[in-house]
Amino acid sequence: MSDFFNVLTSEHALEVVRERVTARVDSETVPTALALARVTAAQLTSPEDLPAFPRSTMDGFSVRASDTFGASEALPAYLDVIGDIPTGSQSDVELATGQAAGAFTGGMLAAGADAVVMVENTQPIDGTAIEVVRPVASGENVLQVGEDIGRGAVVLEAGHVLRPQDLGGLLALGITTVVVARRPRVAIISTGDELVQPEATPDLGMIRDINTYTVSALVQEAGGIPVPVGLIKDDYESQKAAAMKAQDLGDLVVFSAGSSISTRDLTARVIDEMGSPGVLVHGVSLKPGKPTIFGLSGTTPAFGLPGNPVSAMVVFDLLVRPTIYQLAGCVRPPQPSTVQAVLSRDVPSQAGREDFVQVRVVSENGRLS
Amino acid sequence: MSDFFNVLTSEHALEVVRERVTARVDSETVPTALALARVTAAQLTSPEDLPAFPRSTMDGFSVRASDTFGASEALPAYLDVIGDIPTGSQSDVELATGQAAGAFTGGMLAAGADAVVMVENTQPIDGTAIEVVRPVASGENVLQVGEDIGRGAVVLEAGHVLRPQDLGGLLALGITTVVVARRPRVAIISTGDELVQPEATPDLGMIRDINTYTVSALVQEAGGIPVPVGLIKDDYESQKAAAMKAQDLGDLVVFSAGSSISTRDLTARVIDEMGSPGVLVHGVSLKPGKPTIFGLSGTTPAFGLPGNPVSAMVVFDLLVRPTIYQLAGCVRPPQPSTVQAVLSRDVPSQAGREDFVQVRVVSENGRLS
Repeated sequence: MSDFFNVLTSEHALEVVRERVTARVDSETVPTALALARVTAAQLTSPEDLPAFPRSTMDGFSVRASDTFGASEALPAYLDVIGDIPTGSQSDVELATGQAAGAFTGGMLAAGADAVVMVENTQPIDGTAIEVVRPVASGENVLQVGEDIGRGAVVLEAGHVLRPQDLGGLLALGITTVVVARRPRVAIISTGDELVQPEATPDLGMIRDINTYTVSALVQEAGGIPVPVGLIKDDYESQKAAAMKAQDLGDLVVFSAGSSISTRDLTARVIDEMGSPGVLVHGVSLKPGKPTIFGLSGTTPAFGLPGNPVSAMVVFDLLVRPTIYQLAGCVRPPQPSTVQAVLSRDVPSQAGREDFVQVRVVSENGRLS
Repeated sequence: MSDFFNVLTSEHALEVVRERVTARVDSETVPTALALARVTAAQLTSPEDLPAFPRSTMDGFSVRASDTFGASEALPAYLDVIGDIPTGSQSDVELATGQAAGAFTGGMLAAGADAVVMVENTQPIDGTAIEVVRPVASGENVLQVGEDIGRGAVVLEAGHVLRPQDLGGLLALGITTVVVARRPRVAIISTGDELVQPEATPDLGMIRDINTYTVSALVQEAGGIPVPVGLIKDDYESQKAAAMKAQDLGDLVVFSAGSSISTRDLTARVIDEMGSPGVLVHGVSLKPGKPTIFGLSGTTPAFGLPGNPVSAMVVFDLLVRPTIYQLAGCVRPPQPSTVQAVLSRDVPSQAGREDFVQVRVVSENGRLS
């Protein structure tokens, strides 16, 4: 299989990845308040009705709607105010016909009330009564029991990436812990005879490793845990040994290989021999990023990224990022931010090849270019 | 000032915030590898040339370009190959006229060479010589010393939010620590007589606190440290005491207030009396989010967010998020992701008011709606 160099479109390559990566990480329970950006491992249903009581959505007066029917500026309805129900208090007031009680946004309605009149549509009379100048329908300005969410209703599906508002919503229901996918561990192997650690002063001909750190940061952004395996020389035995170690440490293995033809072939050979089925994609028709490799060792996905840092980032976004989410059980990861703008010069592209071009976006007179 | 309710556009409100928030957090030194999403506190310049040696950008042969002038398929140039310079090795080969040396992507050129011929444009002859079938110009396929970045050149400006590629780039230059703004601390006060902690079972009329957790997560996303001060009752003394504590704990204070007119007025009064100059913006012409408050106590910014969780998020994105970045010294924070789509129904909007509407984006036949 190591001579196989069947160039796919990036779409097709992603399809192969989606179909062939079947592994999923196990789950763990974490406090909801600390679960930002984690992926839910199971469907979550509501243990209770929210709200648990009919809530006013306005400041005003809770009333029997029928008492206001026909009310107008010319012919207001007169109601006796028999009390207030402050927000946060339980109602101990029950309305009879012709009565109203002070209501506050988020507060309870009086017993017997079925609507709230906005304070703007009332006029106080002598402190104990009001004029209502507009009718309300039954249920108006009221959030009914379970209207936000009913007991037993699905709150979030499995495979959902938790956003700030999700955390608030879960906590509102008293769901203080949540079962989420463990963060996928991504083992990173940087290969190249020319590489030294960033702390070192490189001898002539050598350069510092970049990709371990760029890829580590990309892994973090995608919700994974980077596990750097080290700088590995360009020989088969060293790389095979590193690959087997990486497979033990990671749910996914990323090779950041050199850009030479010889080193690319080496990565493909190592991925092929880590375990069956081996290399499944070798070459993607995009620029930069053509020498991309995807394979499986058992159920562990392995990627060979191009050595050029920009190419490595492009391929990471297209293939590795979705795979990290997929391992966590999320099939629709959050989309990276996009923007449309006008190119300031022509960019040539070869037919059948996708081109990724670095640009600087400039906003001028409200127009992006 | 507490009666002041001068409704501004969100753009104008942001302008007031930008102008009036002059405080900046102090800085700290962190390992570059751990500095993802941090804000640089000083301009960074390169301590060295990158690359430090002329690097080949291709696999092929380093040559004296003049030896290839006029070469073609019909009339190739013949060159003696006097050695190889593997990637990562220092060159110990010096070319005379008519000589070439094996070159690899990322590797050094032979001394005396000024260009690299791609392997595709050569033919081997008897193992010790090659035919070159296309001429190269001096400098072709060579990355010159300092071409990526020269010693002393500016790598990153102060106020830059560090991305994965920035970390790689800094480490490539041996910059293993970086001075960044301390993460701004955002003190969060949730006010409301009706609020209980998420762990509690609310009595009738009470609800669990949502906004502390939603706002905390939003603060994290914006690079800040959330510091929840607690659930505070709707009375002036409690809120004033909480505000003074929050001002001690935070670089910025956020009140998540109730939505009632009375509680809004209370927040404004507390912000006004935390310290001079007090409330500067009270009311923004957007929906949801109108009852937004911005003020300063000395140089500490304080915001009053609407109690409705959706409104609170909208106002956070528009005003609080940019302020967190501004405190860290970043005036152009990363823009949230946007997408253009077609509304499936008309959305009415009042003249002079900005509306934020929650939508579900659906992709159908390649068209977003």
